[in-house]
Amino acid sequence: VLRAHNRATIVDVTHEVPAQDIEAGAFFVASCIGRFPRGTVHLAVVDPGVGTARRLLAVEAAGDHWIGPDNGLLDAVLALEAAVVRAIEPAALGLRAASRTFHGRDLMAPVAGWLAGGRRGFATLGPTIADPRRLPAEAGDRVLVVDRFGNLITNVAGSRVTPGRTRLRIAGRELRCVGTYGDAGRGELVALVSSYGTVEVAAVDGSAYDLLRVGRGAAIELLDRDG
Amino acid sequence: VLRAHNRATIVDVTHEVPAQDIEAGAFFVASCIGRFPRGTVHLAVVDPGVGTARRLLAVEAAGDHWIGPDNGLLDAVLALEAAVVRAIEPAALGLRAASRTFHGRDLMAPVAGWLAGGRRGFATLGPTIADPRRLPAEAGDRVLVVDRFGNLITNVAGSRVTPGRTRLRIAGRELRCVGTYGDAGRGELVALVSSYGTVEVAAVDGSAYDLLRVGRGAAIELLDRDG
Amino acid sequence: VLRAHNRATIVDVTHEVPAQDIEAGAFFVASCIGRFPRGTVHLAVVDPGVGTARRLLAVEAAGDHWIGPDNGLLDAVLALEAAVVRAIEPAALGLRAASRTFHGRDLMAPVAGWLAGGRRGFATLGPTIADPRRLPAEAGDRVLVVDRFGNLITNVAGSRVTPGRTRLRIAGRELRCVGTYGDAGRGELVALVSSYGTVEVAAVDGSAYDLLRVGRGAAIELLDRDG
Repeated sequence: VLRAHNRATIVDVTHEVPAQDIEAGAFFVASCIGRFPRGTVHLAVVDPGVGTARRLLAVEAAGDHWIGPDNGLLDAVLALEAAVVRAIEPAALGLRAASRTFHGRDLMAPVAGWLAGGRRGFATLGPTIADPRRLPAEAGDRVLVVDRFGNLITNVAGSRVTPGRTRLRIAGRELRCVGTYGDAGRGELVALVSSYGTVEVAAVDGSAYDLLRVGRGAAIELLDRDG
Repeated sequence: VLRAHNRATIVDVTHEVPAQDIEAGAFFVASCIGRFPRGTVHLAVVDPGVGTARRLLAVEAAGDHWIGPDNGLLDAVLALEAAVVRAIEPAALGLRAASRTFHGRDLMAPVAGWLAGGRRGFATLGPTIADPRRLPAEAGDRVLVVDRFGNLITNVAGSRVTPGRTRLRIAGRELRCVGTYGDAGRGELVALVSSYGTVEVAAVDGSAYDLLRVGRGAAIELLDRDG
Repeated sequence: VLRAHNRATIVDVTHEVPAQDIEAGAFFVASCIGRFPRGTVHLAVVDPGVGTARRLLAVEAAGDHWIGPDNGLLDAVLALEAAVVRAIEPAALGLRAASRTFHGRDLMAPVAGWLAGGRRGFATLGPTIADPRRLPAEAGDRVLVVDRFGNLITNVAGSRVTPGRTRLRIAGRELRCVGTYGDAGRGELVALVSSYGTVEVAAVDGSAYDLLRVGRGAAIELLDRDG
């Protein structure tokens, strides 16, 4: 990136996406929307199809640009209003991959740097396309990511739970929903709305993962006290 | 931070504080004093009380600013001469937390960015207070942090040990104090002064943690050969 | 670094070198050659000899500068044409190590910052020397690094294998060489050329390390189908 734009400010959002896990990567991509200064160029690489014929995308949406493989990773960005999608043409841009196992460095990073530094405009990257790959329809309420604290981050929208009323079932346990960690006792397993806006399962001052031993993909059921 | 000050230089000091461990976090905060360019804004978030009534602090000390929760995390900074402490008033500053589980992003980062970029002065953040929370009095000589090399970093001031004379007792073992790794044999367990200025227990070319299997909180005793 | 040059752009290349592993560190140093903007100052610290009499080096090569201990870590840079090597003289530069266990912060980082910011020229750092330490001659084809995906990165030049023809023997298994992950089935163990330019052993959508349970130092043998 710096070779393409040597005054770039680079932020490493995360390197904790599980290997090859496009859906988890897409979750972190979604969490970046609107969180950076307008005009930011976002570069996302979770790319098990590297070296095959899969396309590389450049997307313009919500005032930002997004670069990544055409495999669903940018799904949340593609869903934004007025998103424009282009298929990057590396050869026409003078780019050649030195390797068939990682295109982040040789193909995607230069494009991101050029856009950020103004050396190339979005319209010059390749033709617009209408059929970028989306994520498959979601397979129900479940855990998407286990963070480094052992919290289980789910795909359940925070608006669907009410602290003090909703209960959540996971791994044979039934947990109450609270507003924040301080509303529960030390070690208690609870559900609450995470900073990503979705529900998380947490153990107060502990690790929910260590207590439940379920992670990525674990099914979740919401129950209402009145129901 | 970048949304509040888009030319900020950001340094990630560490993300290796054990979850919820305020005292270990406070150790890393202390280790940053005087180590960055004068005028640096330090942002520290180890915040198990997030979402409760605990205050947020802004501290001016030694030419720098420090932002963090009022839970002892900034203890070493509060101990600096002429430290001025303010309780941040998020609502008066136009800040609203989107979540009750993480205030680093929505409340503390904007304040840090404003201070760093000069958009707001320290005096405008909230009233000065005289009763910030301090860490509880220390419970004796012990291990504070296990680093990623397996070194056991303690709270024992380096000035209390003399290489070649002092001996250190931990986990039923008695170790000699050396000046540096090269003064001991491969695999030997020794005590020496770490780059933090406190004593560390290390295994030369190995991991003290793997050999001793004790960590955070393990008691330490100093012995003098002459004693 | 920022205290020596407060507008420095800092890139953390990696903190995943196994403790004390000079040869693995040297591999990452080599992988940075030519990958950053011309004029970059590279700082590398894998330094088991810290606190002993080992020298500190500053090297000028290929338009960049490199700072590190004199223990073989900079081997690939020393091999570059027209490399100039100086032994840094900390005392003459007004530098004093606060610790005998880590010189990255107190001695090497200031020098790197001065060079990057132009406060000191390369020629002022100390005398040129002709006998920097090199890595011992390589002990054959083997695994150098296990990355966080569980890929086994080897020291075998990519030019020595031909996808579809070469076979690779490791840990009693014989693997075929492919062009990229998509050329093999899910879970299959294969060999292919990594983005470092050397051969890697990988499990498609999985971890080669988990399947083979060998790592650093594991021997490799190349076989040709025609052979």
